[in-house]
Amino acid sequence: MAALELHHIGIAVVDLDAAIERYAALFGATVEHRARVDDQGVEAASLRVGPSRVELLAPLGADTPVGRFLAKRGPGMHHVAFAVDDVAAELARLRASGAQLVDEEPRPGLFGLQVAFVHPEATGGVLAELVGNG
Amino acid sequence: MAALELHHIGIAVVDLDAAIERYAALFGATVEHRARVDDQGVEAASLRVGPSRVELLAPLGADTPVGRFLAKRGPGMHHVAFAVDDVAAELARLRASGAQLVDEEPRPGLFGLQVAFVHPEATGGVLAELVGNG
Repeated sequence: MAALELHHIGIAVVDLDAAIERYAALFGATVEHRARVDDQGVEAASLRVGPSRVELLAPLGADTPVGRFLAKRGPGMHHVAFAVDDVAAELARLRASGAQLVDEEPRPGLFGLQVAFVHPEATGGVLAELVGNG
Repeated sequence: MAALELHHIGIAVVDLDAAIERYAALFGATVEHRARVDDQGVEAASLRVGPSRVELLAPLGADTPVGRFLAKRGPGMHHVAFAVDDVAAELARLRASGAQLVDEEPRPGLFGLQVAFVHPEATGGVLAELVGNG
């Protein structure tokens, strides 16, 4: 198997600006990238906390995955992302092992990287994202 | 501020053995340490996924913090831990900035490291743990 490592944790927030300020004040986080990802229905900010990344996700509307997550569970941890060398290959491997997938094919994510989501059912309740290294 | 970085993500599970097997099969995770932490009411396993750590937490009973978490939200992401040089100093800094704390003082955690929890209220819904580097 390709070596995995944690790429970021994704956190659902209501107010992106307020959350950025809070993470800066609490943990010294700095914004490395901020963008609308219409495909995912979010405005996202990738923050650096030391060498680690925290991705803050604010929904573009109530009827989006993150909007529904906030309505159901409130703000908080939304997903865990692992960096992989080849998203398509990793998806194929997971599919072959019987893991339930959200995305059958890689799609464009933040930074223009390839991403794909693995269903929480596969991992015991954790929405997992695969992020391609390039 | 001392440089922070992600130490691990904590995931609440019902069956620790089953979860370890699943993370091994899905993500090539390996157990680096496993222990009961009576103080926290859990049996915990620290897994390595490449250079990153995932901590699986199974409650020792229903009337424990993780037992109540599972009853309320089901299995899934429970907390995010940041490594800090000095837990007591970081707690003092957070307290001075008005952040709501779970632990006013560091206490012993997994690996015998000093840990302390910051209340989700402070972070916008994320239970955050500080883990001392030594």
